[in-house]
Amino acid sequence: MAGKYRVGILGATGMVGQRFVQLLEDHPQFEVTGLAASDRSQGKSYSEACAWRLPSEMPASVRALRVEAPRPPLDCDLVFSSLPGEMAREVEGEFARAGYLQLIERQRAKHDGRGGFIVTNPNCSTIMLALALAPLNIRFRLESVVVTTMQALSGAGYPGVASLDVSDNVLPFIENEEEKVETETQKILGRIQDGEIAHAPFSVSAQCNRVNVSDGHMAAVRVKLTETATLEEVRDCLINFSSLPQELRLHSAPARPLIVRDEPDRPQPRLDRDAGKGMSVTIGRLARDRVMDYRFVTLSHNTIRGAAGAAILNAELLLATNRI
Amino acid sequence: MAGKYRVGILGATGMVGQRFVQLLEDHPQFEVTGLAASDRSQGKSYSEACAWRLPSEMPASVRALRVEAPRPPLDCDLVFSSLPGEMAREVEGEFARAGYLQLIERQRAKHDGRGGFIVTNPNCSTIMLALALAPLNIRFRLESVVVTTMQALSGAGYPGVASLDVSDNVLPFIENEEEKVETETQKILGRIQDGEIAHAPFSVSAQCNRVNVSDGHMAAVRVKLTETATLEEVRDCLINFSSLPQELRLHSAPARPLIVRDEPDRPQPRLDRDAGKGMSVTIGRLARDRVMDYRFVTLSHNTIRGAAGAAILNAELLLATNRI
Amino acid sequence: MAGKYRVGILGATGMVGQRFVQLLEDHPQFEVTGLAASDRSQGKSYSEACAWRLPSEMPASVRALRVEAPRPPLDCDLVFSSLPGEMAREVEGEFARAGYLQLIERQRAKHDGRGGFIVTNPNCSTIMLALALAPLNIRFRLESVVVTTMQALSGAGYPGVASLDVSDNVLPFIENEEEKVETETQKILGRIQDGEIAHAPFSVSAQCNRVNVSDGHMAAVRVKLTETATLEEVRDCLINFSSLPQELRLHSAPARPLIVRDEPDRPQPRLDRDAGKGMSVTIGRLARDRVMDYRFVTLSHNTIRGAAGAAILNAELLLATNRI
Amino acid sequence: MAGKYRVGILGATGMVGQRFVQLLEDHPQFEVTGLAASDRSQGKSYSEACAWRLPSEMPASVRALRVEAPRPPLDCDLVFSSLPGEMAREVEGEFARAGYLQLIERQRAKHDGRGGFIVTNPNCSTIMLALALAPLNIRFRLESVVVTTMQALSGAGYPGVASLDVSDNVLPFIENEEEKVETETQKILGRIQDGEIAHAPFSVSAQCNRVNVSDGHMAAVRVKLTETATLEEVRDCLINFSSLPQELRLHSAPARPLIVRDEPDRPQPRLDRDAGKGMSVTIGRLARDRVMDYRFVTLSHNTIRGAAGAAILNAELLLATNRI
Repeated sequence: MAGKYRVGILGATGMVGQRFVQLLEDHPQFEVTGLAASDRSQGKSYSEACAWRLPSEMPASVRALRVEAPRPPLDCDLVFSSLPGEMAREVEGEFARAGYLQLIERQRAKHDGRGGFIVTNPNCSTIMLALALAPLNIRFRLESVVVTTMQALSGAGYPGVASLDVSDNVLPFIENEEEKVETETQKILGRIQDGEIAHAPFSVSAQCNRVNVSDGHMAAVRVKLTETATLEEVRDCLINFSSLPQELRLHSAPARPLIVRDEPDRPQPRLDRDAGKGMSVTIGRLARDRVMDYRFVTLSHNTIRGAAGAAILNAELLLATNRI
Repeated sequence: MAGKYRVGILGATGMVGQRFVQLLEDHPQFEVTGLAASDRSQGKSYSEACAWRLPSEMPASVRALRVEAPRPPLDCDLVFSSLPGEMAREVEGEFARAGYLQLIERQRAKHDGRGGFIVTNPNCSTIMLALALAPLNIRFRLESVVVTTMQALSGAGYPGVASLDVSDNVLPFIENEEEKVETETQKILGRIQDGEIAHAPFSVSAQCNRVNVSDGHMAAVRVKLTETATLEEVRDCLINFSSLPQELRLHSAPARPLIVRDEPDRPQPRLDRDAGKGMSVTIGRLARDRVMDYRFVTLSHNTIRGAAGAAILNAELLLATNRI
Repeated sequence: MAGKYRVGILGATGMVGQRFVQLLEDHPQFEVTGLAASDRSQGKSYSEACAWRLPSEMPASVRALRVEAPRPPLDCDLVFSSLPGEMAREVEGEFARAGYLQLIERQRAKHDGRGGFIVTNPNCSTIMLALALAPLNIRFRLESVVVTTMQALSGAGYPGVASLDVSDNVLPFIENEEEKVETETQKILGRIQDGEIAHAPFSVSAQCNRVNVSDGHMAAVRVKLTETATLEEVRDCLINFSSLPQELRLHSAPARPLIVRDEPDRPQPRLDRDAGKGMSVTIGRLARDRVMDYRFVTLSHNTIRGAAGAAILNAELLLATNRI
Repeated sequence: MAGKYRVGILGATGMVGQRFVQLLEDHPQFEVTGLAASDRSQGKSYSEACAWRLPSEMPASVRALRVEAPRPPLDCDLVFSSLPGEMAREVEGEFARAGYLQLIERQRAKHDGRGGFIVTNPNCSTIMLALALAPLNIRFRLESVVVTTMQALSGAGYPGVASLDVSDNVLPFIENEEEKVETETQKILGRIQDGEIAHAPFSVSAQCNRVNVSDGHMAAVRVKLTETATLEEVRDCLINFSSLPQELRLHSAPARPLIVRDEPDRPQPRLDRDAGKGMSVTIGRLARDRVMDYRFVTLSHNTIRGAAGAAILNAELLLATNRI
């Protein structure tokens, strides 16, 4: 256990907080030593405070940890946060100023604290989309992207979506989601120019829907490319995508960041969300499109690849590249 | 009862067949006198033969009717058909040659029989899409259309989709559906030129998904227009759409063929599929789009507006315009 | 409109409140003139305040009514209430003391106010169960009852059950429900003795589950009878049950309070909950039982027969019998 | 690999067949060498023939195996079968006569072949129920049992239940299931007397329902005991249950065959079906009952503990006790 980084989790009793706890069990580099939550659970042990809603058992190592208030000091070197929007900005700033490194599961402007700093995740739909688009943008330069999402219930946290709202139903609205996907995708695939992020020059259109699926965000995507490409070239470009996390063989990096399936009826949330332990993005139904150039369907696990797993992978990457 | 047209239903025990029976109960112009099905139910009374799967009760007037084989003669003047694909072409040809008028709930090449003729319905997703696009195409001339559907289970008939396939899941594949939506939309919104259908000149891209909803096809739509239009003009164009069935005040014509809703979270299948007794198409989330020009979400009842109701409305229209 | 009773609805924006509004549209004796809710909606028009979640449209007659605080005075003669538990007792007492008649959709001890009085509904599962048991108890005297419920989501109100909790799941727990079903059933089927309710002498065992169904509570029931009875006698006893609301031909009284179905796979929530406009209780799978004497499955619409509809029927009954 | 038993799977492309394949991957004693199915998949490789519907990937070791007809000879020493009812009796007899050992996932009379023999599984609901009842029957002798099941979709195989039948619905009927649970429970908990099975003397009442859950059969159970017992004694009796598979530390034996949970809202299918790798039965809500003596809710994974896993455990037991 010696030599492991001591990790705190903010929002530890929520959906993504529980994923952090689950994914960090037996992690080779991190050990959960601090748990914080904003709700009435403070002061209780985690096993009492947290209604564990994942199919696996709550890890034994965290059951007795006391849930603290989400304020420094917290017994850890590094903080993973999944606090809800309003309170996140304030609390996370406090931790950064107090010198903690933070990895946060939603996109926000980069705070730059005194001693520590904050690494944020983008929106969970955007992560998946950006991963699928990245190799295409590098190789063929995207001109425009049209994406229609069918997002899982866990993306709304807990209690999140009322069951009566999705029973025998689809909701064509997720607050602020379309704007986020449109702008964050341009940002993530942009470049650092003079210390600023220059948004990628392609345009993005997003229509976002909530469907009656527990986990696994899915998106129907069309892309228009600046450069010409055959279907085979597009397919190869996706299949062969590999990046620094794979090179560095990071613990949470899936062998294949993008899995391309050729069966006509894949990806499907129930069958493909756990690919690569929830860290692979699955792509299927790749074909020429009659209006744009190409189209495909993509899927990933929104609370792993799209949230907790992504933050942990970021932390592993920062360690491996000696940035922390 | 005297003076009503005597109507036969082919495929009377299936999902759409049951909708025909339900919608024709107490119809002012039609009376169901013949029921036919291809399965083992022949020879039994309809109440014995048919596992009625609609929430309302089976109409008393048809309970004792004997289910016949789907071959002429059938005790009726006019035939509504919802036979499955393979057998439909053959059987329906027989009825046309035998002098029956037929209204069929799927798109096929026009057969031209001896004494009778066949009026077919397009694909159920296409009907809804074409209705929403028609006024836009008339007024602003469509340049291209991008549609992503989230289709209901009843669109696949019965037994149709296995429950294990959609439990906690979305299926990104419906056989031949994308091709149908792409080509039939161009066809329906095309023009008759020298006795032939000239496809509409705009291009259509369709990605089709099956979601865990009983009834109500939904689609996220983007359109690019040839002529410039303000959001207000697009909105007015949709709201004010009215057509011959409304003018003629046909029994099955909804007062408003298109309902435009301004709430951010509508349309929803469970709440909007029965609008206009299942014959109105609901449109919501109308907005400017970053890649195309405008976007919206549309929804309608796939076995009413998209199938049985559409065929009945066609029959009413043919009667009102003295074509039969 | 003259001559109608003026009705107020407490908790008008909730699930049951919306049902009251829906069922009272075009009611021959009642007219909704007052709407009250405890939430932030006070002061707004009902159409602004209420996110209408029923498939039908919000009745035009109530759209402009202002939502008031749930305190007297309210512009009405009679109050229907579906306020949540904690606040109900206090608020409803205020109305009773102020002289309003109230019909409340949950069981509570009878308050006896100054000028008005309160008529409460039992728990929604109990209503259905008691209706199915009543004729059996009258005719064959129940010795014991074992009931296992599978209850709908709307029974928990809105937002109620989190979608993540019932997606691909069943919940074996509804707070206080088993106790309520066990004791309220004995109470409703008890007798008034010296001005007190004497509980019925049979014992009741209830296990209550929440299933992923929007509306329609279902229960698997076994009964042990004090007197011997053939299966045919039990069946006849249920089929022939009729009561005062049927005799008096009350507006909301279904022609058949109990519908006995002989198909092996009925009742089903989706197919049978709307029987008798949601006011009939459907019974199926009646058979001898190996441990108790007889068993059956029963189902009814929990927010109509089990809540709003029951309260309205009670009001109609009180009017018809000149008690108000 | 040397020394492993060579195993064939009949019905290899079905739901339970796929579970056999999944559970036998990396099994220390068995190696899948033969795959057979009755459908059109014969002659194809398993990866081509089988639409794999489990979230994990199809094991690499079986992808290239050719699917054979379900008739001897099959390249294996021992056969696991999950063929559908009608064809099972005939085919399995052939294998037994040809000298194969078979472990079959449904209850049938014991065939006794020439060289081989057949070990059958009981019905999937019965396995779970019998496991929960076994310790109670041993210790307190059951007098009667009342069980109401809420069974998962996968229990009906594939395609099994039509999605339209369970969408927003519960089905109160599973063909022959109630009879099976009632009689097989008595049989399994009976004794061998003069070479015959003497049914256990307690009576069983079963009401069986299909709910909208993918995997995990749940049952609400009441028991009447011949001997008096305190709640604590009943609880201890369940918790401390352990049997030969635990003693022998068999590969597929869970550490705890019965898990008793004290949270008020457990067991739940989604959270508890995978307990003990799908081989533990979870019990919760244990309490005194007002009609019978005690009650509880029990749950297990129907295609693992209730089918494939049970058959594999049986095979391990036969090996460990030198019966094969």
